[in-house]
Amino acid sequence: MITLERPIRFQDVDAAGLVFFPNYLAYAHEAMEALFEPLAGGYTRLILERRIGLPAVRVEAEFVAPMRFGELLAIEVSVARLGNRSLTLRFQFRRPDGTRVAETRHTVVTTDLEALRSCPMPEDVRAICEQHLER
Amino acid sequence: MITLERPIRFQDVDAAGLVFFPNYLAYAHEAMEALFEPLAGGYTRLILERRIGLPAVRVEAEFVAPMRFGELLAIEVSVARLGNRSLTLRFQFRRPDGTRVAETRHTVVTTDLEALRSCPMPEDVRAICEQHLER
Amino acid sequence: MITLERPIRFQDVDAAGLVFFPNYLAYAHEAMEALFEPLAGGYTRLILERRIGLPAVRVEAEFVAPMRFGELLAIEVSVARLGNRSLTLRFQFRRPDGTRVAETRHTVVTTDLEALRSCPMPEDVRAICEQHLER
Amino acid sequence: MITLERPIRFQDVDAAGLVFFPNYLAYAHEAMEALFEPLAGGYTRLILERRIGLPAVRVEAEFVAPMRFGELLAIEVSVARLGNRSLTLRFQFRRPDGTRVAETRHTVVTTDLEALRSCPMPEDVRAICEQHLER
Repeated sequence: MITLERPIRFQDVDAAGLVFFPNYLAYAHEAMEALFEPLAGGYTRLILERRIGLPAVRVEAEFVAPMRFGELLAIEVSVARLGNRSLTLRFQFRRPDGTRVAETRHTVVTTDLEALRSCPMPEDVRAICEQHLER
Repeated sequence: MITLERPIRFQDVDAAGLVFFPNYLAYAHEAMEALFEPLAGGYTRLILERRIGLPAVRVEAEFVAPMRFGELLAIEVSVARLGNRSLTLRFQFRRPDGTRVAETRHTVVTTDLEALRSCPMPEDVRAICEQHLER
Repeated sequence: MITLERPIRFQDVDAAGLVFFPNYLAYAHEAMEALFEPLAGGYTRLILERRIGLPAVRVEAEFVAPMRFGELLAIEVSVARLGNRSLTLRFQFRRPDGTRVAETRHTVVTTDLEALRSCPMPEDVRAICEQHLER
Repeated sequence: MITLERPIRFQDVDAAGLVFFPNYLAYAHEAMEALFEPLAGGYTRLILERRIGLPAVRVEAEFVAPMRFGELLAIEVSVARLGNRSLTLRFQFRRPDGTRVAETRHTVVTTDLEALRSCPMPEDVRAICEQHLER
């Protein structure tokens, strides 16, 4: 498990004054990028040079408590399931005091971005996932 | 059921060239606003004057086919479940030729935005939901 | 001159409750896409197939009056200057009653997106610009 | 002058594969928030509790070189002009090697967010501006 901290930004809220809920999925994507940072060249090189992506095919999300501009968000990311060509990432969103804000689970598929077809999971991607696999 | 059509915009894609998946939830929100347009003053007045919001507490999403800039998206919205203080909206995303792109289901709670607490569903909101309830 | 109407969306405002000012540039981009819609295949084909872009090299903007969620925005776009490889687009943002909200001027350069270098303006792009050139 | 570093994110690019230019203004806003971080409660409290905002009334921007996903952006912010109720912030965007990417100048007005009218600049805001005033 790794934890990413990031502030709720000025433009992240909606006209109700609360974080616009699709933004949580974008925050989760940031946390996923952080998870794969140890790859050589990071997530960036995976996408741009190796042309392997991790598009989501399924997302489940629960939103427990609203957040506002200026609050700090802690995102814990772990691997809930590890398959041959797919994995399920779990993102737990908390306030700094530990209170739960949201949880999302994203099933992503290792994908050849040229062919737009699933591909076997690269070994270095798998190694990182195994390291963060929930027990 | 109502259907909203909207283009995929220039800035809606990510560095893999595909629609960034959190945007589908934002598209769904647009379709929800269109659904509640028949309210007096529309969704806008519901939020800004009546101070009643419809925050999502649960989202499930399946992403079936990727979309790119310049494609046209058709979003069908219906009410899958209608409770006392909550409802589940179903959004089906298709290309103009009918091929499935994605489906999301959002459970939202009628919420007093001042107290940030659930409130009974207003009658005019319920009437629209009943009209679009799946049989 | 063409005019595009679009609503201010739920997520377009910031924590001050006003349209987050960078969004005006994105609205202007939508209006530019509408301006070039008469091209065969529209702005989409220009970017994706012909691989010619119109990146901004200079922007000037005045913000006169704030806008909020639920308001309707009318964007008038005209061509203020037409050069060999560049042009300046003028975007005037108004409320439906005609009151001024903002004005932005974008100097864009016709650009070969493969070489990332300026290129002569295609004749069909120029023809549209001449049609909307301010007198 | 302060410097903020931030990565170009996966969703910050457009269908041409380059940073969507309105995002630079959002990055600049982040840098402005960092500049005012030394206020008691930071920029957040200024907006949410003291109800004083700094909306832009004028923006000038030059975009010199395109940026892509995965690059690192350094934003230098300084105060180019300091008035009674307004100031002009200068944002210089560079790559880590120092090459220029863009420059934007934002004239912002200290604004009472309840009345939506300009107000005298608070002394603690002025003190920070003086500290970062260009000589």
